[in-house]
Amino acid sequence: MRLIEAKQLDDIALGAAVLGTGGGGDPYVGKLMAQHSIERNGPVQLITVDELDDDALIACSAGMGAPTVMLEKIPSGDEIVAAFRALQDYLGKPLFATMSAEAGGMNSQAPFQVASELGIPCVDADLMGRAFPEIQMVTPTLYGISATPFAIADEKGNSGILNTTNNRWTEIFARNMTIEMGCSSYIALFVMTGKQAKEAVVAGTISSIEAIGRAIRESHAAHTDPIETVRNATNGFVLWRGKITDLNRRTETGFARGTATIEGLGDFEGRELQIDFQNEFLMAREGERTLASTPDLITILDAETGHAITTESLRYGYRVAVLGLPCDARWRTPAGIDLAGPRYFGYDVDYVPVEERVEAAA
Amino acid sequence: MRLIEAKQLDDIALGAAVLGTGGGGDPYVGKLMAQHSIERNGPVQLITVDELDDDALIACSAGMGAPTVMLEKIPSGDEIVAAFRALQDYLGKPLFATMSAEAGGMNSQAPFQVASELGIPCVDADLMGRAFPEIQMVTPTLYGISATPFAIADEKGNSGILNTTNNRWTEIFARNMTIEMGCSSYIALFVMTGKQAKEAVVAGTISSIEAIGRAIRESHAAHTDPIETVRNATNGFVLWRGKITDLNRRTETGFARGTATIEGLGDFEGRELQIDFQNEFLMAREGERTLASTPDLITILDAETGHAITTESLRYGYRVAVLGLPCDARWRTPAGIDLAGPRYFGYDVDYVPVEERVEAAA
Repeated sequence: MRLIEAKQLDDIALGAAVLGTGGGGDPYVGKLMAQHSIERNGPVQLITVDELDDDALIACSAGMGAPTVMLEKIPSGDEIVAAFRALQDYLGKPLFATMSAEAGGMNSQAPFQVASELGIPCVDADLMGRAFPEIQMVTPTLYGISATPFAIADEKGNSGILNTTNNRWTEIFARNMTIEMGCSSYIALFVMTGKQAKEAVVAGTISSIEAIGRAIRESHAAHTDPIETVRNATNGFVLWRGKITDLNRRTETGFARGTATIEGLGDFEGRELQIDFQNEFLMAREGERTLASTPDLITILDAETGHAITTESLRYGYRVAVLGLPCDARWRTPAGIDLAGPRYFGYDVDYVPVEERVEAAA
Repeated sequence: MRLIEAKQLDDIALGAAVLGTGGGGDPYVGKLMAQHSIERNGPVQLITVDELDDDALIACSAGMGAPTVMLEKIPSGDEIVAAFRALQDYLGKPLFATMSAEAGGMNSQAPFQVASELGIPCVDADLMGRAFPEIQMVTPTLYGISATPFAIADEKGNSGILNTTNNRWTEIFARNMTIEMGCSSYIALFVMTGKQAKEAVVAGTISSIEAIGRAIRESHAAHTDPIETVRNATNGFVLWRGKITDLNRRTETGFARGTATIEGLGDFEGRELQIDFQNEFLMAREGERTLASTPDLITILDAETGHAITTESLRYGYRVAVLGLPCDARWRTPAGIDLAGPRYFGYDVDYVPVEERVEAAA
């Protein structure tokens, strides 16, 4: 157990954006809300998965929807606590701790706000080791753990509880409710025992993203190369350097979808990369050649600062580096690839680990 | 209190179809399920609203969705009980009785199935005195009574609980879930105390529809005119007699929508009536002239048998009579007309009571 102060959320947000691969919502708004809570209520206890009693009950707290919308429809801060409370009320008992559902942006912060407001610990883990656009795309699905009972709330005071026969149904019902709620909602999900969590979650994610964020911050002070810093902190690969020259963006079926075109610079001069996204960056391709694909992580960094750029912040003219990072080993199993590989998203491409693609290209 | 045997559901279904104004689902499937339950469990206690204790808690049981789909996606019979149980579980206490949400087809039968399976009484009332396509279109909405907590279940084992800030939101969320569930679902809603029910529901609806059904059955035995029988049993008006010559039908946003054209016969020879529907018949018009409009009841009867025809059973060539029946007085208040009048459904027509339209035409 260690205590997380408001200030530490700066590093956590910075690192979360890197593993968030463009998604997970704007970390800024979520961070301000969580910091405000911690300043009022004192630091949050961050506990490791191993510190959980086997029979302790926990659940994740998250925002859901199109991040492009969340930027304009800013939450009041009560919704996410309302969703967690609705889940506790439904269960008829308090939950011992909360946890991050994904290592991305706002969803790295949301659990700290809930933990602070309710005076409960936050678990140092998430359900992906990255961000993904759909509810069923989490390692607990690979262990047969249900996303339900699942609570959803909006800023208008509406809420719901779902019980579904599989996690894909949770995604379908919750996505539709989120769309009707105005394309953003707040959820509490994946009630698990400590015993289940020890097996099924990605442990240590909060500490990992904090370390990445700290490295970026320190590289600024030390005037070292921020891209190299992030590459080193994540065991990743620099796939591309260039300038954003085209953006095709649409909010569709409750997601922020689109394609970014990045004209090469330096070693990549005269070439063109295309990155497709659905809340998260899914595919990095040069013509027919795939440089990296989901479930591996594709991250776009600001070339000057090393800060990760979210899908909703992509702008024409930005100078960027594109990193490919290996995903958690469980995503590379046949079941993991079925759940979140290129074919699930409609790409007729086999999944090949990013390090093999990099080696083949060299 | 009186006991309802399986046999009596025949008359109740027959009469419900008349007040169902084309909607409420196919009474046949719902009736068979309810009769099967009663044959196994014994008769159901039908109690009057006045017999409810002021603090007795009740809730309605109903099917939701496009009746055209329900004909092909026949329920197993457990779903509607599952929805009621999910609501009880959420409340953490048993409900004293169930009730019909609408006097239409399947939804006149569903509460008997739940009552029989759970061994609880059914209240002789409904929330409309007719059928309407959307959840908020019930007299309790006029008294500020919430449709939530609201339970929804499907045949696959999925279920949900909604809590919303108004009944229109319940409709929006539940309609979307119903669409994802395959355009039909089973719901439990409008938890009310006996005191609330005495003020806000339409009392005596089950007895009314049973009387209408009995009159139709007896007219067959006596070889009297079935159309005149229904007109007399409902205090209605014969608006039209003719033959269905055109049908425009679509399943859209979870509803069965369309228009039926009825060529006049007899006194109506050489003229043409159009009836628009959204699950229920909403507007009866001859060119620019409105003969009857929602919230008054428009019912299409088979000219030979006097049986009401549901929107999904309309067929080219059917010989029919169209009846207009006055709605419950509360639908004729400004709030009632706002909730379910022609303008709500997009028609640029003022509501005029059917008896005034008939008198003006005479």
